[in-house]
Amino acid sequence: MTSIELLVIGGVAAGASFAARARRLDETAHITVIERGPDVSFANCGLPYHIGGEIPTRGVLAVQTPQSLKALLNLEVRTQCAAVSVDRAGKRVLVKNLVNGQDEWIGYDKLMLAPGAAPVVPPMPGVDDARIFTLRNLVDMDRIVKATLSGKRAVVIGAGFIGLEMAEQLRHKGVDVHLVELQRQILPQLDHKMTLLLESELRRKGIEVHLGDQVTRFAATKESLQTHLASGAVLDADFVVMSIGVRPETSLARDAGLQLGKRGHIVVNAFMQTSDPDIYAAGDAVETQDRIMDGQTAVPLGGPANRQGRVAADHLFMGDKARPYPGSIGTAIVRAFDVAAGVTGWTEQRLQMAGIAYGAVTVNDYQHATYFPGATPLTLKICWAEDTGRLLGAQASGQDGVDKRLDVLATAIAAKMTVEDLCHLELAYAPPFGSAKDIVNLAGFAATNLRDGLVVKTDVLPEDPAVQLVDVRAQGLAEAFPIAGAINIPIATLRDNLDKLDRKRPVVTLCSFGKMSYFAARVLAQNGFQVSSFAGGIKANLDPRIPPKL
Amino acid sequence: MTSIELLVIGGVAAGASFAARARRLDETAHITVIERGPDVSFANCGLPYHIGGEIPTRGVLAVQTPQSLKALLNLEVRTQCAAVSVDRAGKRVLVKNLVNGQDEWIGYDKLMLAPGAAPVVPPMPGVDDARIFTLRNLVDMDRIVKATLSGKRAVVIGAGFIGLEMAEQLRHKGVDVHLVELQRQILPQLDHKMTLLLESELRRKGIEVHLGDQVTRFAATKESLQTHLASGAVLDADFVVMSIGVRPETSLARDAGLQLGKRGHIVVNAFMQTSDPDIYAAGDAVETQDRIMDGQTAVPLGGPANRQGRVAADHLFMGDKARPYPGSIGTAIVRAFDVAAGVTGWTEQRLQMAGIAYGAVTVNDYQHATYFPGATPLTLKICWAEDTGRLLGAQASGQDGVDKRLDVLATAIAAKMTVEDLCHLELAYAPPFGSAKDIVNLAGFAATNLRDGLVVKTDVLPEDPAVQLVDVRAQGLAEAFPIAGAINIPIATLRDNLDKLDRKRPVVTLCSFGKMSYFAARVLAQNGFQVSSFAGGIKANLDPRIPPKL
Repeated sequence: MTSIELLVIGGVAAGASFAARARRLDETAHITVIERGPDVSFANCGLPYHIGGEIPTRGVLAVQTPQSLKALLNLEVRTQCAAVSVDRAGKRVLVKNLVNGQDEWIGYDKLMLAPGAAPVVPPMPGVDDARIFTLRNLVDMDRIVKATLSGKRAVVIGAGFIGLEMAEQLRHKGVDVHLVELQRQILPQLDHKMTLLLESELRRKGIEVHLGDQVTRFAATKESLQTHLASGAVLDADFVVMSIGVRPETSLARDAGLQLGKRGHIVVNAFMQTSDPDIYAAGDAVETQDRIMDGQTAVPLGGPANRQGRVAADHLFMGDKARPYPGSIGTAIVRAFDVAAGVTGWTEQRLQMAGIAYGAVTVNDYQHATYFPGATPLTLKICWAEDTGRLLGAQASGQDGVDKRLDVLATAIAAKMTVEDLCHLELAYAPPFGSAKDIVNLAGFAATNLRDGLVVKTDVLPEDPAVQLVDVRAQGLAEAFPIAGAINIPIATLRDNLDKLDRKRPVVTLCSFGKMSYFAARVLAQNGFQVSSFAGGIKANLDPRIPPKL
Repeated sequence: MTSIELLVIGGVAAGASFAARARRLDETAHITVIERGPDVSFANCGLPYHIGGEIPTRGVLAVQTPQSLKALLNLEVRTQCAAVSVDRAGKRVLVKNLVNGQDEWIGYDKLMLAPGAAPVVPPMPGVDDARIFTLRNLVDMDRIVKATLSGKRAVVIGAGFIGLEMAEQLRHKGVDVHLVELQRQILPQLDHKMTLLLESELRRKGIEVHLGDQVTRFAATKESLQTHLASGAVLDADFVVMSIGVRPETSLARDAGLQLGKRGHIVVNAFMQTSDPDIYAAGDAVETQDRIMDGQTAVPLGGPANRQGRVAADHLFMGDKARPYPGSIGTAIVRAFDVAAGVTGWTEQRLQMAGIAYGAVTVNDYQHATYFPGATPLTLKICWAEDTGRLLGAQASGQDGVDKRLDVLATAIAAKMTVEDLCHLELAYAPPFGSAKDIVNLAGFAATNLRDGLVVKTDVLPEDPAVQLVDVRAQGLAEAFPIAGAINIPIATLRDNLDKLDRKRPVVTLCSFGKMSYFAARVLAQNGFQVSSFAGGIKANLDPRIPPKL
């Protein structure tokens, strides 16, 4: 029996996972990994943190070498080699050695394409300036580190996950940072209100945030690189980091005649096979089934990439026994200074744009028992299918415990749980860790109350003066942080003050967190008022830093 | 229409939740809450932390008063009143005022029994000494706080969740603590090996741990209270805290002729109705359906109690629209100093005792990316049904991230997920929060590998000298922390050293975390060896504090 020839294009997340799993499943396979860069299987998610100095030692990001992978996994790794073309009929790939320029055909029985995705750099005047960087690999990282040695002013373009990490880390290193985002919010992957706390944190830590603005051109002056914005603003900086998104690297696949999706990703089946069954693909370059809705999705993140590589290897060696890739949900999180925010599944914005009938609610609580030291507020938003109540997405924001709630809700989404199911999740509770009713339970309660018609919610404050806006916070808080046009009737005095309200006019109740306003709405509704509760309260809608208590 | 008369016996977790939800659902109901103690709806889980001073302000534990509950929820709360007997035919309860001794019959349309559970105090010589405490309410707490003002030596009896919290908090306050546990491990709710790190932490922080020992009697001397153990040891202390477990308070229910379960709990249906449909019960005094297996279970914790109270109120007012209580899983966590440990669902020990065919595996990893500062090891054990692979239980231990993994796995258990499903949970990943392959994914991989027959595991080191024990750690680590009888062949050199091993004799591979030993087992198995991997490695089995790398 001759050993199988495996050729892997791309030696980072998906490619490295595929190769490692393949070796586990077959000691005899001949496995060659082609990597264009000088490094293999490096920790690409750690790059911003070395730039900012939070990860002081560069070496921890590049633990593996071709030599170590040879020793550990008996892989033939060729770095600084690029795949030029695939000869599918001849089952071979033309590989160019980028150091000496030599070409070589390498044959395969099975091919894995894991080329990843490249940062988008739009054409515009001055964009070729050597002080404009993108961040994909260790070489890029080293360039930016070098730029920070002399440069103390930076512009980060794009306020998505990478842009926020870069802005935070550059600021961490003492660099003055301008952050420019085309959308009118940071982190456009989340619903706007769920980004307010993070935006406030960026500004508090001294980052200049420019929203709803975009770069028109770059201009080099004697002392600096100028970034010109559509608004007319001109930002002087020593260097620029572009992080407006990534584009799948699919020219090799396209030229080989493999099927591509609408947005240019490689199309694969649930076992990561391309339209050519001898060619697998995985990672940032592919689109997969959306795990929540019908249709395809592309989630260019490390988790899916690693697991896709594994699925492909399983299919190759285990055949029918292999389990399919169940599709991607899209779970992501970012930390900036003392605040984290993240998402799993679909946002309200995305559901609206897709015309899907949904429900949504935002709740606030603390990450653990309020009486235990260190309690900090946490905001959670969930979206569900209007008909079935099935959970479709969740977003969280806060200083602590954001990742935990996203993970619980990502699990609930994978399990196709409903919002009713969230009420009865039995989560780990001791005062340092949670609450007897965790915020995930509370979100389930709030959604179920809405679905049961126990409360009507509003996400906006009324502009109609005929509507009575009732602020049920304690008097001291209502006076310290007043809401224009509101009558203050503290919740504890509401039943005794119903005569202050006009039963013929609608009422909106509001409070800090959205909980007391719900309580008040129940009192008023049962007393014959037409009432809505301002869901999520002041914290989730107006000012994420207003304290709930005085 | 006359308003409904609701009578609630017990004003803490389940009773308070029931009353609050009932008020939300019916403004007109007349709701009376009878509470034996002087305090209502207090934070009982916080009691140990005020004793230890970690929660410095007593007031945060007792936020609600009869007055505040009247104002907020229009409840009639009577503290220091005890329910003496239930007249089911007359639908009334005899209540004794514990302050003035007066008796009064209070009528009800619906009755809620939420009497809770009382600490067990076994009869033994000297047990009536006034320096022996239990901890259930604020009065108990105040007594222990007072004891710590002069006493600097304590014995804590029982190393379950409350015992560990008490031991930690007393030590935190500078008290010398002996911890006595009948079982040969701390935290008998977990499998033994999953308690090793926590036990080590207790000892490191100066707590004297006595396992497999029990109190035979107490004796008062001039200077101290002596605790005599079966082993012969005599522990001198200034006071003792008994925390060996709780017993449901069901004399009222029993005397009323309500059905009780085998272990003395009140039997309820899925809507928390007792055998009398006009009487509900919830909280520590009831048994409910086990959410994982057929049969009944009792989980005396705040989370289930609160949600059960809510279910009962929903059933009362919403009837058929109410959703049933889905049963309890049993999720619990405890922190002691810098280590946390916890469980959700069934342990291996419990599955063994019940004669259920199961699989189990333990894996180690870090709570987040290893290259990110602050990475600390985490150990996770999962158990599943042998036939279907359905997840039946999980346990976790570590310094950080324990609660998150328990919550994810509690959700997976509620969803009846299999270990294969764990492989593809898409959890929130950025370097400060997780790993591209989270330890939950790794546990799924390990279980699936076992189920697929890719590896055979062993949970014990071989005693048979015919078995070749191969330590695949790096040479430096193997020399610094040697394992008796093992041959050191570092994983990176294994393929070149196969001739050092005898193909005719079985092999067990071992390493720090259990990962490299699995890799080595795959190499050896494919080279014709009969091999088992020591699952969970040295860390989970032998010494939880041996570092994985040097």
